[in-house]
Amino acid sequence: MEKKKLRIGLIGTGFMGRTHSNGFNRITNFFPNLAYEPVMQAVCSRNEEKVKAFAAQWGYASYETDWRKLIARDDIDAVDICTPNDTHAEIAIAAAKAGKMILCEKPLSRTLAEGEEMVREIEAAGVKNTTWYNYRRLPAVTLAKQIVDSGKLGRIFHYRANFLQDWTISPDLPQGGAGTWRLDVEAAGSGVTGDLLAHCIDTALWINGGITDVSAMTETFIKERVHTESGQVQKVGIDDACLFHCHFDNGSLGLFESTRYARGHKALYTFEINGEHASLRWDLHDLNRLEMYDHADESIVRGWKSILVTDGDQPYMDKWWVPGLSIGYEHSFVHQAADFLKSLETGEPCSPTFREALQTQKVCEAVIDSAKQKQWKDTNVEWPC
Amino acid sequence: MEKKKLRIGLIGTGFMGRTHSNGFNRITNFFPNLAYEPVMQAVCSRNEEKVKAFAAQWGYASYETDWRKLIARDDIDAVDICTPNDTHAEIAIAAAKAGKMILCEKPLSRTLAEGEEMVREIEAAGVKNTTWYNYRRLPAVTLAKQIVDSGKLGRIFHYRANFLQDWTISPDLPQGGAGTWRLDVEAAGSGVTGDLLAHCIDTALWINGGITDVSAMTETFIKERVHTESGQVQKVGIDDACLFHCHFDNGSLGLFESTRYARGHKALYTFEINGEHASLRWDLHDLNRLEMYDHADESIVRGWKSILVTDGDQPYMDKWWVPGLSIGYEHSFVHQAADFLKSLETGEPCSPTFREALQTQKVCEAVIDSAKQKQWKDTNVEWPC
Amino acid sequence: MEKKKLRIGLIGTGFMGRTHSNGFNRITNFFPNLAYEPVMQAVCSRNEEKVKAFAAQWGYASYETDWRKLIARDDIDAVDICTPNDTHAEIAIAAAKAGKMILCEKPLSRTLAEGEEMVREIEAAGVKNTTWYNYRRLPAVTLAKQIVDSGKLGRIFHYRANFLQDWTISPDLPQGGAGTWRLDVEAAGSGVTGDLLAHCIDTALWINGGITDVSAMTETFIKERVHTESGQVQKVGIDDACLFHCHFDNGSLGLFESTRYARGHKALYTFEINGEHASLRWDLHDLNRLEMYDHADESIVRGWKSILVTDGDQPYMDKWWVPGLSIGYEHSFVHQAADFLKSLETGEPCSPTFREALQTQKVCEAVIDSAKQKQWKDTNVEWPC
Amino acid sequence: MEKKKLRIGLIGTGFMGRTHSNGFNRITNFFPNLAYEPVMQAVCSRNEEKVKAFAAQWGYASYETDWRKLIARDDIDAVDICTPNDTHAEIAIAAAKAGKMILCEKPLSRTLAEGEEMVREIEAAGVKNTTWYNYRRLPAVTLAKQIVDSGKLGRIFHYRANFLQDWTISPDLPQGGAGTWRLDVEAAGSGVTGDLLAHCIDTALWINGGITDVSAMTETFIKERVHTESGQVQKVGIDDACLFHCHFDNGSLGLFESTRYARGHKALYTFEINGEHASLRWDLHDLNRLEMYDHADESIVRGWKSILVTDGDQPYMDKWWVPGLSIGYEHSFVHQAADFLKSLETGEPCSPTFREALQTQKVCEAVIDSAKQKQWKDTNVEWPC
Repeated sequence: MEKKKLRIGLIGTGFMGRTHSNGFNRITNFFPNLAYEPVMQAVCSRNEEKVKAFAAQWGYASYETDWRKLIARDDIDAVDICTPNDTHAEIAIAAAKAGKMILCEKPLSRTLAEGEEMVREIEAAGVKNTTWYNYRRLPAVTLAKQIVDSGKLGRIFHYRANFLQDWTISPDLPQGGAGTWRLDVEAAGSGVTGDLLAHCIDTALWINGGITDVSAMTETFIKERVHTESGQVQKVGIDDACLFHCHFDNGSLGLFESTRYARGHKALYTFEINGEHASLRWDLHDLNRLEMYDHADESIVRGWKSILVTDGDQPYMDKWWVPGLSIGYEHSFVHQAADFLKSLETGEPCSPTFREALQTQKVCEAVIDSAKQKQWKDTNVEWPC
Repeated sequence: MEKKKLRIGLIGTGFMGRTHSNGFNRITNFFPNLAYEPVMQAVCSRNEEKVKAFAAQWGYASYETDWRKLIARDDIDAVDICTPNDTHAEIAIAAAKAGKMILCEKPLSRTLAEGEEMVREIEAAGVKNTTWYNYRRLPAVTLAKQIVDSGKLGRIFHYRANFLQDWTISPDLPQGGAGTWRLDVEAAGSGVTGDLLAHCIDTALWINGGITDVSAMTETFIKERVHTESGQVQKVGIDDACLFHCHFDNGSLGLFESTRYARGHKALYTFEINGEHASLRWDLHDLNRLEMYDHADESIVRGWKSILVTDGDQPYMDKWWVPGLSIGYEHSFVHQAADFLKSLETGEPCSPTFREALQTQKVCEAVIDSAKQKQWKDTNVEWPC
Repeated sequence: MEKKKLRIGLIGTGFMGRTHSNGFNRITNFFPNLAYEPVMQAVCSRNEEKVKAFAAQWGYASYETDWRKLIARDDIDAVDICTPNDTHAEIAIAAAKAGKMILCEKPLSRTLAEGEEMVREIEAAGVKNTTWYNYRRLPAVTLAKQIVDSGKLGRIFHYRANFLQDWTISPDLPQGGAGTWRLDVEAAGSGVTGDLLAHCIDTALWINGGITDVSAMTETFIKERVHTESGQVQKVGIDDACLFHCHFDNGSLGLFESTRYARGHKALYTFEINGEHASLRWDLHDLNRLEMYDHADESIVRGWKSILVTDGDQPYMDKWWVPGLSIGYEHSFVHQAADFLKSLETGEPCSPTFREALQTQKVCEAVIDSAKQKQWKDTNVEWPC
Repeated sequence: MEKKKLRIGLIGTGFMGRTHSNGFNRITNFFPNLAYEPVMQAVCSRNEEKVKAFAAQWGYASYETDWRKLIARDDIDAVDICTPNDTHAEIAIAAAKAGKMILCEKPLSRTLAEGEEMVREIEAAGVKNTTWYNYRRLPAVTLAKQIVDSGKLGRIFHYRANFLQDWTISPDLPQGGAGTWRLDVEAAGSGVTGDLLAHCIDTALWINGGITDVSAMTETFIKERVHTESGQVQKVGIDDACLFHCHFDNGSLGLFESTRYARGHKALYTFEINGEHASLRWDLHDLNRLEMYDHADESIVRGWKSILVTDGDQPYMDKWWVPGLSIGYEHSFVHQAADFLKSLETGEPCSPTFREALQTQKVCEAVIDSAKQKQWKDTNVEWPC
């Protein structure tokens, strides 16, 4: 059977450009039964030499140095946005107006207002859209969602998540530019809130439902850094750390923390959910495992169970190897790419849509506002949406 | 050499009565070189049959059924208070006026006002005093304090602690009475805040210094319970869960959580402290271990180190067995008893004194107020004090 | 109710003298319902100053410097042997002839022949006897036994155990004398085989049944050491490491290893048992936990379960604290002391009897012989016995 | 720069056909700087429909149904053998005679005699050769090798490894045929010895050097199984479990175990090495971590360190993501493919060569013989070779 083609135009060749490209490049090998197959049609970045090399390395048939040209091309079905946050809105809106499907790297936008405009325009254009909150697609995380949806946990009391890193502790690290735009508030919009907590919030909304209101604190530990482009010492505008607690629609309490100043943690994303009958927890540093405590177990042998999520009857794992053999971080993007292709086949939206990702922006904005104003903030999240 | 005697009068024969009695009973066997030795002189509880049996079981030479009589006795040097929180103030103040040394189970008091009166009276009476925040005396926790004091961590960015349990999830559990007075706000003063978070706060003050201001939320998941004594369904007045973030005097951020609704956790007290150069973490469920990440380690072999704190050169461990052989929960009380006896010898205060324990009360009160009023609260903690 | 007395005479005041004394000293506090209570009647050691101090520290009413005098005393009901291995046989046989009950530290003897003589004499004398294989009495180990006995594991395929230490790596450590008699083959009989593997074998026999035949290897890494007493460099006669595999009566395969040259392990005693339907594993460094994998669990959530053995319905734990609060190494001896007292009440033997401990000696002897002769050896174990 | 091409012909489209194909398919994306690039020229399998689909899925330009035709093709530079063990020798020898480079899946052969003939012929033909002992190429394992080679461990005392699975416990599983040829002694040569222990032995030789002599035991728990092809119940000829101890050339002791009857373990390959100054351990179920204990650490903070091997200065990890983000099982094959391509560039052999893999066969044969004859066997391993 001849497969239908999805011709992709990727914008941005940084770290996320690599993860997305890899995501699509693995489809033919590991998801051979999809009706659609991706075609690496074009990639775009401003530096011609680099984008050319990137195209060769990742198998793109052509390249552009101006994203507007890429969007204008007739041979592109979907635009995949991997550029810094300050360009998401402009590119996405232009792509929508050009009738392209859009896959946008997270966070959706720098600010809520930007995000709202994006959703308005994309929905007005009626184009297919999704946001790359990739961690949902790790098998252990998807299994957690399945277990919660089955009702096995009963009434939920607590949800907690953190995302801890340590890569910005040195005051010598500059802000701005290729490797460090995440430290530049103009490019990033926020610090750990949009970069890391947004992941935690997306997973929480997906698994535990809407967040009602938040109370937050943020901190900028290193107040000034040299800016890569200007060479000047400038005030640091991002949040280095962000902590908040919140209420969920289901009455449970949420506790979230993120920082880039937790020495020893490289990418420690963990979450835990405590229900009346059972609890679950997960850790990105050991991503193939889900831990579960089930009060229904016989009393003398109750305990936290370490579930190695590598069996064929567990999410996505029929596509890979055999029980006991683990997969890694990059596979989350392969799964998201596959799910997007599958959604073309079924006609269903590919979650998280821009509208869903906007709810995460609402929480992020309420968090930042709460920290600034030192008071509780309603989020106005609509979930499901 | 003839040892000096410390004649102890214990008030209260519940769970804490057992842990304290065991603490003193082990001194002769394991701390033979102290100048003072404890004498189990008298124990007091209202039920004569029970207190008599308790005296026999734990080796008390006599018993009383009225604590005022115990305090009035000439042959008692120190009064050890293990009764529910609502009696701490009255007993402690009476004991102080009678010139007795006082060892008081934590939390010091139900409210800050009560605690302030206690400190005022005890200090006016000039009697020796201490509070049983026993977890400080676990070897791994004491080692953490030593490492932080050595400066090895550098500037501190984060301190987080939680204390998670699951024993009150059933709505059929009553409030009030012998086993469940901790659920009765009249007897306990608060729920998890005074019972569990107080431990976390005490350790945090000790290791990381003063807490400036807090923002908290609390929740009561089960709104009504039968009262053991009245047999009536009554409103539950305690906090079932409490979460807060805060600033420390040293500029680091604190995050604290406690609940009795975290299915699967029995007594999960953990803390972690992240500094510029190193981090530490600890877990009561595996209490002989301290984990440490040291950025000074050679780059390719950096990692979290699991330190089994059982060697003779680690705190308290020269008193016990040989490397690799673990001790348990109860040993924290033995160590505190030994430290109290040692402080008689040196004439130093035995930390945490009532004044130090009062600082924990200040944080607890600010936390409860913050949660009620939904706003940040200053703590007015004085540390050191 | 007046309790019956068991008047104990302890011989040996080293490390094991301390653990046994502590075992009996805790009975009144934690096992108040036993019909018998221990009386610390006398302790014996050659050095008068030391034994006097030991008696004071551990609460013995009197002391002796000649063990024959202790055995001859009318006011001693039971003799507890904690001396080096080379004296077990002589003391035990003399005590039996004097009509005393005997509690003997493990291993029963240096050699099988010695052990056989001991069993013959003790059984001829008809005195109550037991051997201190204390690890059986850790709650998690006893729970493992209960689960295996319930049949939950089905047919057993594998049993493996190791006991790894690192305290003799330095060639500067002497052999012989108070702290290092375990390195002196004359005093100890063997090295790790009798000292460490004997524990593993005892547990294995108890849980998994008789061992049929063995194939072993041993090694002495440091060939010569100064002898503490002679001051001379002498050949080292003990085994520094011992590894063997074997068959069990039930058709399962055993794998055992012990060494004092495993850098980083202080007292890493672990065992694992794999059955058709379920598996169990345990680790002395985390002694309150038992891990279990149950194939009967629902497929997508199967995993190794970490059972924190601290609940009142788990073995021995109704005697201690509350769920989540751990106990330590020393409690194994308290439990064994309590079980011995209980056996006086019931009239049952207190396992492991000398006869049972002799089966462990048979395995040890076969192991040493197998290693020397480089061939498989039958053990002639009789189990149950 | 135009890359040189390595035109690959793959024989066998089972599980290993997939892992090897994926290994080569990832080269362009993740190892862009190699002088050689793989070309997926042809794949061969007997079933035309299946091989055609495999070619489409994995990007092979053509297919064959007779391996002799594939070998005869002029447009193939290297033959990659992924068929069951009973065909390795015939194919490899034919390929060598045709002047092809050869990459052979492990184990090299069913028997030592077969392996010796292969080495003789391949070396006579002078063709490049390597064996897919992929686990060496996991970053944590390669890091272990680097650390040992640095001398940091000092004198080595112990090496232990196991490989535990549970997939053949059911007596209903047949032997022979596509999914279960590993249970058929004709096809596989041996059971766990060649399938699983061979991996452990290869790693051990690489890290710890030659193995001198062995003492082994094997067991076949399920004695008869239906044969997939004949439909008849036949005697099972393979070893279901294999345990052995051994001496290494460096004087250390080895302990190895493998089974497919360890309920709860899916692919638990672990090894540990204990040296005078430091120890290392690793576990395939958590493959991105290496654990290390370093006695040179300051005494009070010594402990086992959990090294998350995801940093750019650790082996292979500059090719993947950022610190903290893990890779999986399949990456070991990508690394081996890259190393093979690199070896074309440098002209070095690509370890393990057939000659090196033959040493593993020598150990396997000695192990099987030792178990059968119940006696120690010399291996005659030559290492390095």
